[in-house]
Amino acid sequence: MEPFRLEGERLWLLDQTLLPHEERWIEIADARGMVEAIARLRVRGAPAIGIAAALGLWLEARRIARGGDGERRPGGGRSGLQAGTEALREAAQSIRSARPTAANIGWAVDRVLRAANRAAPARPDRGGSAGSADAETWVQAIFAEALAIWEEDRAASRAMARWGASLFREETRFLTHCHTGGLATGGGGTALGVLLELRRAGRDLSVWATETRPLLQGARLTAWELQREGIPVTVVADGAAASLLARISIQAVVVGADRIAGNGDVANKIGTYPLALAARERGIPFVVVAPTSTCDPDCPSGDAIPIEERDPSEVLAFQGIPTAPAGVLGRNPAFDVTPAGLVTAIITERGIHRGPHFLLAGVDTDPKSR
Amino acid sequence: MEPFRLEGERLWLLDQTLLPHEERWIEIADARGMVEAIARLRVRGAPAIGIAAALGLWLEARRIARGGDGERRPGGGRSGLQAGTEALREAAQSIRSARPTAANIGWAVDRVLRAANRAAPARPDRGGSAGSADAETWVQAIFAEALAIWEEDRAASRAMARWGASLFREETRFLTHCHTGGLATGGGGTALGVLLELRRAGRDLSVWATETRPLLQGARLTAWELQREGIPVTVVADGAAASLLARISIQAVVVGADRIAGNGDVANKIGTYPLALAARERGIPFVVVAPTSTCDPDCPSGDAIPIEERDPSEVLAFQGIPTAPAGVLGRNPAFDVTPAGLVTAIITERGIHRGPHFLLAGVDTDPKSR
Repeated sequence: MEPFRLEGERLWLLDQTLLPHEERWIEIADARGMVEAIARLRVRGAPAIGIAAALGLWLEARRIARGGDGERRPGGGRSGLQAGTEALREAAQSIRSARPTAANIGWAVDRVLRAANRAAPARPDRGGSAGSADAETWVQAIFAEALAIWEEDRAASRAMARWGASLFREETRFLTHCHTGGLATGGGGTALGVLLELRRAGRDLSVWATETRPLLQGARLTAWELQREGIPVTVVADGAAASLLARISIQAVVVGADRIAGNGDVANKIGTYPLALAARERGIPFVVVAPTSTCDPDCPSGDAIPIEERDPSEVLAFQGIPTAPAGVLGRNPAFDVTPAGLVTAIITERGIHRGPHFLLAGVDTDPKSR
Repeated sequence: MEPFRLEGERLWLLDQTLLPHEERWIEIADARGMVEAIARLRVRGAPAIGIAAALGLWLEARRIARGGDGERRPGGGRSGLQAGTEALREAAQSIRSARPTAANIGWAVDRVLRAANRAAPARPDRGGSAGSADAETWVQAIFAEALAIWEEDRAASRAMARWGASLFREETRFLTHCHTGGLATGGGGTALGVLLELRRAGRDLSVWATETRPLLQGARLTAWELQREGIPVTVVADGAAASLLARISIQAVVVGADRIAGNGDVANKIGTYPLALAARERGIPFVVVAPTSTCDPDCPSGDAIPIEERDPSEVLAFQGIPTAPAGVLGRNPAFDVTPAGLVTAIITERGIHRGPHFLLAGVDTDPKSR
């Protein structure tokens, strides 16, 4: 499963808010469309929105290069690639702020802007940008960088899946939270990618999936993706997961991440932290699977991770139907922070990292050493 | 707020499944109607369903005494109060099994059956029971016992509220789970009753309420009752509570209980256990408020508490709208068990009980000793 589809120069995105009931692909034409899709969670999952950010900048660069942004830049006399790169920077800012927690957006935006800069001559200052060969080269350089980000993420998913399979040699019963499958990445998945890999290797899996309120990514997306792969999945309320860890023989909790601080603290979908507490209480491994594009070594600890607060209406209603009385307040943090001390291991594409100094520690390159 | 209303001999019950959007009172006429109301959570909350069980037996006794049960007893020749008590026992069995976890149902049913036995002469064996003075006396004895159970619960709520106010001398910021207000009891409430008492005493409270999936008692009922009382309430997803304990200065978690084992283990609404883990992690008091009718000293520990498993459709849909794909499994335990070691104090109508030997320990009758 991949969240994007390229048809020639047209980019389509599977609207994840409508799953599992409807599979609708929507075309994204520019940065504004991509910001809307990211902010409304039509595409979500930290690796996927990193790729989305990169693709959104490509679409915007194309629009700029082909002269479609006349109304957005004051003083239309300035044009050319340098000005285009500046216009791209504005779009990058709006993409960056679409969702603040996932490290991948900033990481991808920085990469694309560097590529755009490299491709833009210092001051070309030519009269019109539309259709110019240089402008097309500039757009193609940005496109190439976005595709590279996408392809590297696919490769990271494959590598994480293999590392996960080497970590979980016997386990068959897993609990997971939110959605970390192919649609949350460039394809393949993080935590769910590990489970899919075990399945491909013939393992008889049982997976418990939290529904993941308020937006039900577990019930809607994880259940859907596991069902398509023929893996038995049982959906439970978020509050039920802790006691199920105590009552049934779940062997590991596997989750993804949105940002991993330098000390190994993990920001992930709201509700992850209590799962980690319950896993520790029951002596069950709690394993985080995320590419290095989600790691933010410059962020010293979880306290420094910006936590997105979403509209309370997501908690106070369900698909538009109010649950609480009118006038009641809600609070809707989209992520929580699991302290590094509760994390058994972090799997990236580079290997299996163990605490207490996850990102400083050498990578566990020999699966047999576990 | 009380969940029942008596008008002469007619019993009305507020259908809590329709709150907060509709306040509909439904008449209950016999045990079968009460079993339906209990099983479907039209009335819920451990103390309230204990009272409901007692009132249901009264309604059934009246039906039996007035000859309305002809079709239910084979060999209609046997009649009279002894036979009536036996018929009542059958109804009691169906009430008992309507919901297995709350201790209060069994406790109330036992009390009413004992009262029925006391009021029934050994073998009256009279020809017809309908309208007989003895039968009316028998019904009135059962009614009196049901009313006593109700009134004692009201008194217990008042006493728990006072104990709670003596425990929480300064606190203003509380988090609670599920619904434990007047509608969950005979009137007054358990955990929420304590908060309402603090408010009556002039305390400026802020309350965070978990929505309490799958049936949203927090969003629907707690928010509604607090709003009616003018107490600011903020609804959060169940998975958000743990991180909010870490991020905002909540001073205590207060919850009710459905059954408290002899060792102090507490069965309560699913999702309570992870809150207790998070509270311990943050050094925040975790206080359980429940009348002694919820205490089951014969139950040695939480492992022996029967946990009700409800229909998975409650998790796989949201107010009737499917969330997960068709064919996906769900699991829906209605309660979890919080080990005594995570509980800071249990407040009953008798006082403030502290671990590690809650029910064996002397009651803390001097609030100043805390």
